[in-house]
Amino acid sequence: MDAASLRKLLRRVAAGRASVEEAAQALADLPFAALGYATVDTHRGLRSGFPEVVFGERKTLPQLEGIVGVLAGRGQPVLVTRLAEDKAEALLRRWPQALWHAEARILHLPQGRRPRAGRVAVVCAGTSDIPVAEEAAVTAAALGAQVSRVYDVGVAGLHRLLRRRAEVQQADAAVVVAGMEGALASVVGGLVGVPVVAVPTSVGYGANLGGISALLTMVNSCAPNVAVVNVDNGFGGGFYAALVSRGRRR
Amino acid sequence: MDAASLRKLLRRVAAGRASVEEAAQALADLPFAALGYATVDTHRGLRSGFPEVVFGERKTLPQLEGIVGVLAGRGQPVLVTRLAEDKAEALLRRWPQALWHAEARILHLPQGRRPRAGRVAVVCAGTSDIPVAEEAAVTAAALGAQVSRVYDVGVAGLHRLLRRRAEVQQADAAVVVAGMEGALASVVGGLVGVPVVAVPTSVGYGANLGGISALLTMVNSCAPNVAVVNVDNGFGGGFYAALVSRGRRR
Amino acid sequence: MDAASLRKLLRRVAAGRASVEEAAQALADLPFAALGYATVDTHRGLRSGFPEVVFGERKTLPQLEGIVGVLAGRGQPVLVTRLAEDKAEALLRRWPQALWHAEARILHLPQGRRPRAGRVAVVCAGTSDIPVAEEAAVTAAALGAQVSRVYDVGVAGLHRLLRRRAEVQQADAAVVVAGMEGALASVVGGLVGVPVVAVPTSVGYGANLGGISALLTMVNSCAPNVAVVNVDNGFGGGFYAALVSRGRRR
Amino acid sequence: MDAASLRKLLRRVAAGRASVEEAAQALADLPFAALGYATVDTHRGLRSGFPEVVFGERKTLPQLEGIVGVLAGRGQPVLVTRLAEDKAEALLRRWPQALWHAEARILHLPQGRRPRAGRVAVVCAGTSDIPVAEEAAVTAAALGAQVSRVYDVGVAGLHRLLRRRAEVQQADAAVVVAGMEGALASVVGGLVGVPVVAVPTSVGYGANLGGISALLTMVNSCAPNVAVVNVDNGFGGGFYAALVSRGRRR
Amino acid sequence: MDAASLRKLLRRVAAGRASVEEAAQALADLPFAALGYATVDTHRGLRSGFPEVVFGERKTLPQLEGIVGVLAGRGQPVLVTRLAEDKAEALLRRWPQALWHAEARILHLPQGRRPRAGRVAVVCAGTSDIPVAEEAAVTAAALGAQVSRVYDVGVAGLHRLLRRRAEVQQADAAVVVAGMEGALASVVGGLVGVPVVAVPTSVGYGANLGGISALLTMVNSCAPNVAVVNVDNGFGGGFYAALVSRGRRR
Amino acid sequence: MDAASLRKLLRRVAAGRASVEEAAQALADLPFAALGYATVDTHRGLRSGFPEVVFGERKTLPQLEGIVGVLAGRGQPVLVTRLAEDKAEALLRRWPQALWHAEARILHLPQGRRPRAGRVAVVCAGTSDIPVAEEAAVTAAALGAQVSRVYDVGVAGLHRLLRRRAEVQQADAAVVVAGMEGALASVVGGLVGVPVVAVPTSVGYGANLGGISALLTMVNSCAPNVAVVNVDNGFGGGFYAALVSRGRRR
Amino acid sequence: MDAASLRKLLRRVAAGRASVEEAAQALADLPFAALGYATVDTHRGLRSGFPEVVFGERKTLPQLEGIVGVLAGRGQPVLVTRLAEDKAEALLRRWPQALWHAEARILHLPQGRRPRAGRVAVVCAGTSDIPVAEEAAVTAAALGAQVSRVYDVGVAGLHRLLRRRAEVQQADAAVVVAGMEGALASVVGGLVGVPVVAVPTSVGYGANLGGISALLTMVNSCAPNVAVVNVDNGFGGGFYAALVSRGRRR
Amino acid sequence: MDAASLRKLLRRVAAGRASVEEAAQALADLPFAALGYATVDTHRGLRSGFPEVVFGERKTLPQLEGIVGVLAGRGQPVLVTRLAEDKAEALLRRWPQALWHAEARILHLPQGRRPRAGRVAVVCAGTSDIPVAEEAAVTAAALGAQVSRVYDVGVAGLHRLLRRRAEVQQADAAVVVAGMEGALASVVGGLVGVPVVAVPTSVGYGANLGGISALLTMVNSCAPNVAVVNVDNGFGGGFYAALVSRGRRR
Repeated sequence: MDAASLRKLLRRVAAGRASVEEAAQALADLPFAALGYATVDTHRGLRSGFPEVVFGERKTLPQLEGIVGVLAGRGQPVLVTRLAEDKAEALLRRWPQALWHAEARILHLPQGRRPRAGRVAVVCAGTSDIPVAEEAAVTAAALGAQVSRVYDVGVAGLHRLLRRRAEVQQADAAVVVAGMEGALASVVGGLVGVPVVAVPTSVGYGANLGGISALLTMVNSCAPNVAVVNVDNGFGGGFYAALVSRGRRR
Repeated sequence: MDAASLRKLLRRVAAGRASVEEAAQALADLPFAALGYATVDTHRGLRSGFPEVVFGERKTLPQLEGIVGVLAGRGQPVLVTRLAEDKAEALLRRWPQALWHAEARILHLPQGRRPRAGRVAVVCAGTSDIPVAEEAAVTAAALGAQVSRVYDVGVAGLHRLLRRRAEVQQADAAVVVAGMEGALASVVGGLVGVPVVAVPTSVGYGANLGGISALLTMVNSCAPNVAVVNVDNGFGGGFYAALVSRGRRR
Repeated sequence: MDAASLRKLLRRVAAGRASVEEAAQALADLPFAALGYATVDTHRGLRSGFPEVVFGERKTLPQLEGIVGVLAGRGQPVLVTRLAEDKAEALLRRWPQALWHAEARILHLPQGRRPRAGRVAVVCAGTSDIPVAEEAAVTAAALGAQVSRVYDVGVAGLHRLLRRRAEVQQADAAVVVAGMEGALASVVGGLVGVPVVAVPTSVGYGANLGGISALLTMVNSCAPNVAVVNVDNGFGGGFYAALVSRGRRR
Repeated sequence: MDAASLRKLLRRVAAGRASVEEAAQALADLPFAALGYATVDTHRGLRSGFPEVVFGERKTLPQLEGIVGVLAGRGQPVLVTRLAEDKAEALLRRWPQALWHAEARILHLPQGRRPRAGRVAVVCAGTSDIPVAEEAAVTAAALGAQVSRVYDVGVAGLHRLLRRRAEVQQADAAVVVAGMEGALASVVGGLVGVPVVAVPTSVGYGANLGGISALLTMVNSCAPNVAVVNVDNGFGGGFYAALVSRGRRR
Repeated sequence: MDAASLRKLLRRVAAGRASVEEAAQALADLPFAALGYATVDTHRGLRSGFPEVVFGERKTLPQLEGIVGVLAGRGQPVLVTRLAEDKAEALLRRWPQALWHAEARILHLPQGRRPRAGRVAVVCAGTSDIPVAEEAAVTAAALGAQVSRVYDVGVAGLHRLLRRRAEVQQADAAVVVAGMEGALASVVGGLVGVPVVAVPTSVGYGANLGGISALLTMVNSCAPNVAVVNVDNGFGGGFYAALVSRGRRR
Repeated sequence: MDAASLRKLLRRVAAGRASVEEAAQALADLPFAALGYATVDTHRGLRSGFPEVVFGERKTLPQLEGIVGVLAGRGQPVLVTRLAEDKAEALLRRWPQALWHAEARILHLPQGRRPRAGRVAVVCAGTSDIPVAEEAAVTAAALGAQVSRVYDVGVAGLHRLLRRRAEVQQADAAVVVAGMEGALASVVGGLVGVPVVAVPTSVGYGANLGGISALLTMVNSCAPNVAVVNVDNGFGGGFYAALVSRGRRR
Repeated sequence: MDAASLRKLLRRVAAGRASVEEAAQALADLPFAALGYATVDTHRGLRSGFPEVVFGERKTLPQLEGIVGVLAGRGQPVLVTRLAEDKAEALLRRWPQALWHAEARILHLPQGRRPRAGRVAVVCAGTSDIPVAEEAAVTAAALGAQVSRVYDVGVAGLHRLLRRRAEVQQADAAVVVAGMEGALASVVGGLVGVPVVAVPTSVGYGANLGGISALLTMVNSCAPNVAVVNVDNGFGGGFYAALVSRGRRR
Repeated sequence: MDAASLRKLLRRVAAGRASVEEAAQALADLPFAALGYATVDTHRGLRSGFPEVVFGERKTLPQLEGIVGVLAGRGQPVLVTRLAEDKAEALLRRWPQALWHAEARILHLPQGRRPRAGRVAVVCAGTSDIPVAEEAAVTAAALGAQVSRVYDVGVAGLHRLLRRRAEVQQADAAVVVAGMEGALASVVGGLVGVPVVAVPTSVGYGANLGGISALLTMVNSCAPNVAVVNVDNGFGGGFYAALVSRGRRR
């Protein structure tokens, strides 16, 4: 119910063409129903051009085919994350125009208006962190960002990172992916002035506590331009950085 | 805006005493604003006669006087929890009809329609748990429940509990307050058939982890009629039990 | 030993037909034995019509057949929870009148007096939470409750929940099932006035700590009408809500 | 050693006024020393106009006077956070042009070029969270942001938040400050499309674990536009949001 | 009602000095009430001569005077643990025959039959652990044990312990009190064959987690003759060891 | 080197038949070497008749055959715990006189002097706890204890335990095995006067944290006759209880 | 750019064979690029003769072959840790001169200058800890240390350790590997004066928390000559001890 | 009894100035007592010149005066750590030659043979970490090390550390003291080749968990030349580094 139909209803009441009771009834669920539409609308406007995202893990192939079918039908881009290879192959047979990013485990069906975002640097510590970094990079790219990959620059060999500092500095936002002790986020935060989204990974052993140690490191960062998302949440890191990189043009 | 005033407004439109524009204006923010009222309304209806609750901790005396003044002015009962004694005395000087429950640290200003609820048994393990138990008991009573206190019946002397089992069994809901290992909730849950609200307390030492040990005990209870609220949250336990005890008459 | 047989024994002592020693012997275990019967009785009365519940996990097929055989023989309804599909099929071959709820992993053998309970709404956040929600819903239904399922209404798209608020409000108790950050329990608790039983799930990744994060969220809820059961404990949530929904008619 | 002095040195070598050995010596520590200057430079450029920040906790008054004296002397704005009232008063006597934000516990000495940032909304759940929210708000304002305060909109009364959704939606970034179960971050993240910086607070009791429960809630958020900083770190939240709000104009 | 008074009652019935009805009345609450007595009785028999124990912490002086008064009146020995010095002095003025163990913070009122137990060795690691060790030693002595104190024998100077091994070996049970890393329990367990009751203490700093680290060390002990009680629970350690030391003579 | 050979050496020095240097050399390692023998001796004496125990998990069949071969050759009884069924069968082919306890996963080769211990009651909460309980029971029996099994007496149906209280009370020590919330240890500790060894198990789900919740419950027990061993450590529980049950006759 | 080529460039400038601009260009990226080389250089100098280390876990055979190929080509020794047996066999076929340490899961390709280090003792508690101990021992030996293995000397049988104390005392550094309660590190630290590197292992069950309990024990050690590395990190322990054992000759 | 007095005794036996019986008596307790002396001796030899260390916290002034009196009387240097200022002043009045290091809270009484150790660099992140760093530096100096202080070089401004890398590289061992996220240890470990002893501090707020976050960071370090001691354990860090710095000359 929008402003127009509300006025129309009130006019019918004023004209005696609708009883008070009828109108009260019609307005009964207004607060909730109307909000729903408003919210959907808002979100659509907000994220204009951003793809719909499907979390692929734990979903069966028929479920995935159903969901992707509906979303694809709307002409919007679709992103399926955490997808197993065999399911990806099945989906590709049906949507051959989709792109399969094996290391990121993301299937991307680009269509409709191309989203626009800024520059995002994805930095990662070790080779074992690359799958999570790729999830971030592919996500950010699908959201319209230009992505620079700065991989294998862990703090145990700081010179590797220092050599590539400029690439990170020139981005609008950086995703830093690191497991083990997760110190890379603070170091990058100290070296550049851009907002850093830190993604702890479960890579490590012993006292890494499945990534919680790295998460604590990052949350306690002494650099004020570091904020943190969940362990192994490459998608979240890439999404957040792309959103930030869009800046004022939202 | 509640149902009554909505109808009143519509009637004024129907009678020509309010223009369509005026009414549209009044309803302008309906999707969001109306929701607010609707929610408040719903809650008010729901909890009819339930007092407004003020969390007294961390509030200054002037803040408390301001809030209580507003609420008291609406003619509804007011409950101030976690209140320090000196602030209670100051409030009592201004609202001498209020009741001060020292052990529960609750100030109760009963007025308006008396709330109605069922029977609630408040069970506690040791004498150190009594302040939390009293917070539960006074809260439940203020919400209209008839409260039985079954105190000092810890599992180390099971016969004390067994002797008073009937009192708990006859209630509509039981609050079980226990610190240390928190085993009492499971034992009561096994002895009676009523819904049990378990309140872990921070009473204990060493590995009680400030009440988390008791909370874990209660959440892992093998009795299916046990649900749990926060550590030392006597108010929550009493509120929940009183709500349950009202049964279908809601 | 009930009051009658106690008096009978005393009369035999008074009449010299039983020696003091014989009577002392007969009364030796009284406190414990008698309690046992009393407790059983009480429970039976209390839960009248409630099915016997068998925890199916970790039990072999022969064990399950034995237990279900005994319980079924008493003419009472039986509920087997956490049951593997292959074992369910074997049990169905022997008790073809039983109902198999695949998603809830519950086998239900309805017989005897139909249990009576009130209305229970089962709310869940995401599709991955549905198995736990179904465990709650099937349990509550087997205990006699009328169950409304309000699924896939996570807080990231609040409008979906708002649109269905009324269904939850009209219930006598609500079960809220949510993983990840578990915020749904607080939101539902704030929107409706009924007692909410929150069931955290282990759905999520990284820092969800196997559901402990969601459990902590729920236990810390700022809504006083929320109490919590164990992680993934759909059975417990459904049982507790059904018990609450029976209200005073216990 | 900057580019100019490097060239000067080389020219002296070319002119025979410096021996190869002398030049090699002078360049010996180049990799490290030069980097230092480079980094400082970069940062200064980056944060142009951002104030220097002094963490006031644990510092004595003489230490504070010394540090502020040096920084103030450079003509740059200065921000002292976590400052005790008595020390603030002493500093104000010496720098009467400074602004003291009592609730935020921040002393702000504005001078030099005014920093420029975008719009930041600071949202908080309860009145007890206001000191942390104010720390965020004052920080963001000192960094040049236009700040909207949306306070006391906890999820237990969702309508209060819904009524003010537009204010948050129109910001370039939002800081969400919440203790207890911390659900507000997810709810705001679901309602608006802007980047949300979540600040868990230690407000709460029992199982809130000094804010760790709220932190876990926020890190596990199902809304992808939520990233998290440390418990009670209002400064960090305000800084990050201001940085994000500057967008591409960096 | 103990065995003796039950037989006495039955004899009175047999002799016609008590009517059946009177006896039935007296036994009316037997299932529950009698259990209580039975339990108390059992315990009394079991622990014959063991003092009644009062946990002194959190109790006011009037409460303590009341409780000690009642217990002392029964002619049984009384032990008040965790007692503050000023309250001890007040109690001593009223019961000058009581013994005050300042370091153990225990007040002991010996009277009635002297309890009998075996030999208990109390071993502790550092001087900071002595208050807990003394709580154990005084408790065990009050329960009738002969106590050897083997103090300041931490594993960092193993020779000190080795020199006194025989004293521990000759005991019937040993209490091992240790903070920091708590390794002493395993070392003692490996050196002697007697049952060891390990008491972790909160002594230490940093990662000792208030004694939880020592508790974990002790629970994971590779010596099978080590069992553990709560952090700083010297009373529990002394009680358990004294109970064990009584051996078969129970 | 015992007293005799020490004197002999000194006499040779006195007689000039051994140089000071030779004697110093011979005594060089005395402190350590001598201690070693002493310790072995002591332990042998102490545990006289107790079987040698082999932890079977993680050992290959050849390793097991080698170790058992050596131990069996000494004529002492042998206990192999945590043994896989297929390895047990292989060992039984070689030592057909050994006893295989399948549920306890223990292989027992009884030979030599029969160990002597007292009466041990093994109590457990649910059927899923039985393997751990059997490990305790078989261990205690192999150490010479007379074992009573009191199984399936969880606190959710307290009457079952109460009916069998006497069996536990008559033992010299009780092992209480419980998972989930682990409340059984406190309840048994409160009902009987014997030393209770509590064994938490990893049985449960959700917030049981692999048995840590039950362990915390037991360590926080309000009953002073409860001490705790590691999670699932049935062997440790049985060993400790058997040791305690031997009493003074050690 | 190393020292030699820097001098060469400067000489060309001095000789007029390179213009100042050319040289400035060549040095343009010096601060960062040169740092890289410098660091590598420094490290190489430092660790002179230390092998390059490849973490073998999670790497595919082709990846391993590629990396080992490159490193082997430089003529330096190579160490591949955490290597699966089948991959080791494949690498051995290609580099038959390599040594395969099955229990340590390390492949060692010795070549080039032999590294030099001091004496390292590797001490371990139980047979289950041997794989981690061997990882430490083989690593230290590959770094040039003379390694003494002192295995199976857990604290439950202290005499075994005492008998071999001298071997540990004579080393320049000791690695102590222990799971379960990890008490061995403190005991060894107390017995010898050399620096001890403690390696907690995940060996144990129940409350060992995957090695975290042992880690806490070691970090809380009361012996000041104990420092700790990660759980199961035998490589780290061996590396650190070998580094320490080289002493001043670095 | 050390080697010298043993030989003296034997020589007296050889010379007939001591009877065999006298000597046997003197050696009677050798297995245990001698071990004690041996151990002390060994340690003394080992640590030759190292001061005796007294942990000052929790000790009363009279206790401190007693202990220092005894130690000082032996002519050895004494170190009192964690000492309150007022107690330090009292001790200084009695031992005016002692040195009081206020920030380190260490009192040092240098006397006897001067200990000898190598070069130790003490690196710390922020000004709040300085007290712990000073405790390390003063300890290492008192043990004979030449100490370089490299303070305030946290990773948020990496250039500060890079500029001073050489100072750290030239040491024989480095202590790295850091709170908050503790990333400095990994960064230093990656930049230099010397053994690094990492000391986490409790400096920080929110999720630093009293230093446990920094400890986890350091234990998970990807640099193999990092080992860790307890939170805030500056003494331990300084002691370990000094010990390492002595190298082979032990």
